Amino acid sequence: MPAGGHDVDSGPASSGCLLATVSGVRARAPASSANLGPAFDALALGLSLHVEVVVEPADRLEVTSEGEGAGLPRDATHLAARVAAEVCGHDRLRVHVTSTVPVGRGLGSSAALAVAAAAAAGAADPMVWGHLVDGHPENAAASVLGGLVAATVGAEGPVAARLPLDPALSFVVLVPNHELPTTLARQALPAEVPLADAAFNLSRTSMLVAALADRRLLSAELFEDRLHQAFRSAALYPQAPRLLEGLVAAGAVGSCWSGAGPSLLAVCDGTEAGAQVQAAGPRLLADAGLSGRSLLLVPDLDGLLVGP
Amino acid sequence: MPAGGHDVDSGPASSGCLLATVSGVRARAPASSANLGPAFDALALGLSLHVEVVVEPADRLEVTSEGEGAGLPRDATHLAARVAAEVCGHDRLRVHVTSTVPVGRGLGSSAALAVAAAAAAGAADPMVWGHLVDGHPENAAASVLGGLVAATVGAEGPVAARLPLDPALSFVVLVPNHELPTTLARQALPAEVPLADAAFNLSRTSMLVAALADRRLLSAELFEDRLHQAFRSAALYPQAPRLLEGLVAAGAVGSCWSGAGPSLLAVCDGTEAGAQVQAAGPRLLADAGLSGRSLLLVPDLDGLLVGP
Repeated sequence: MPAGGHDVDSGPASSGCLLATVSGVRARAPASSANLGPAFDALALGLSLHVEVVVEPADRLEVTSEGEGAGLPRDATHLAARVAAEVCGHDRLRVHVTSTVPVGRGLGSSAALAVAAAAAAGAADPMVWGHLVDGHPENAAASVLGGLVAATVGAEGPVAARLPLDPALSFVVLVPNHELPTTLARQALPAEVPLADAAFNLSRTSMLVAALADRRLLSAELFEDRLHQAFRSAALYPQAPRLLEGLVAAGAVGSCWSGAGPSLLAVCDGTEAGAQVQAAGPRLLADAGLSGRSLLLVPDLDGLLVGP
Repeated sequence: MPAGGHDVDSGPASSGCLLATVSGVRARAPASSANLGPAFDALALGLSLHVEVVVEPADRLEVTSEGEGAGLPRDATHLAARVAAEVCGHDRLRVHVTSTVPVGRGLGSSAALAVAAAAAAGAADPMVWGHLVDGHPENAAASVLGGLVAATVGAEGPVAARLPLDPALSFVVLVPNHELPTTLARQALPAEVPLADAAFNLSRTSMLVAALADRRLLSAELFEDRLHQAFRSAALYPQAPRLLEGLVAAGAVGSCWSGAGPSLLAVCDGTEAGAQVQAAGPRLLADAGLSGRSLLLVPDLDGLLVGP
């Protein structure tokens, strides 16, 4: 966690806790789907599931939680409490979390929670806090900016920007009921890869950026990846390739892992195609021997929203 | 070379030679700068230097050439003659080439020449011919589409698209007088690279695409690369790193190799900054012990132009 915490006694500061002057702050951040196939650690998409965090002054730390992630310990170890306390420099806080973002499923729940908690606690740059949780910035960037984002880590921290996104695209996410911890998913990756495969992903990513701005250019092959998905499937998730093919066969323009999985993302041309792919989801999951949900989502274009 | 040649006796066909019905066709294609730092084999930029090819019916092959590349053998081995003859299915052609694109300098001269020759000979898809020359499609794509392009090779051949480019950007190219054959530059590259470096280039490329559309987002670090430039510098071109730094010190927003070199590209915010960087070019080259030219260029937004 970065320095930048301030005790309320020292008064509000641009990078510190604003709770000295307000009775409570509410912040909402969207879920996100990172990688989008070839764009490993580079692109992410804000999606219409949300984490909301309210931070208020209190006598001692209180953590409450509703919705997704409500089963997590409601104490100082809770990520929202940790981030809010670090931002504020103390833990005399009431932290309330409401979430529709499945946890540990590759939908950026940690980054969204950290971004929302940091913003509700008054952090000047919530994206930095989201980045710290993941170690790479694209989920946090999508949770802050919304829409389709590019992100990288520069000398002074994460930098990110919105990219154009065709408004007619819709998205289906298959969310298995089991978690796939990001650390395990990272361990499945090789240390070295052929340069030709790196170049393959670079050229696919470049075309994918053009095609996500204009869906007439989209095709399934633009989601092809040679750097992460196959390694993770082989090590952790043998059903994934068939599920990805099934999503395209059901009508998606393309499909890919959502972040480090196990959720899988289908990109669909229009809401009708999206509904059709969503409807096929339960059968695809069942055929793969998995239980889970099939969600039809739209891009979140608002990103982080902060208010009283 | 692909099939698709047609003898004039069999009449013109959409993918064949059009010279049976016209007395001659003129085609012009721009130079291009590929890679743009991190976007190895993925992005390219059409620039305001051009190859023009005129193909006319003749009793036997005649090749004439003016400008850059005029010293190349004017016979059936000339790339323009080879491409035109393949497209037409015979070599009873007069092929005239006029070029301002330096040859063998990393400015896509071969791709531009192949694209223009194929188009002048009536090829249905000149980009395919340009792609065959290089084996990767981004130079050919820029020579056909102009502007900033993304390109990749799909199952059915090269696919490419324009990306937005901030109209206020200008470009300086340092063109050393020595050639750096692309084959040598390719041999300098490692077979394998760290996955982290591939991910680095992916995230830099994604942000670079956003920033080339909006120059306020541009910074020198977005041109950083870990996959090709340093290997090529070490093996073939030890002066390159200092020249790249010198271009930024002279006022460029960022700098990178142009294709496989030895030309170096400086991206400048506005024509005034461009002129300043161009003016510094001769001193930078001299300090590096090199002779060469410093060219101030603008993007070519027309791409391939074909007419009588």
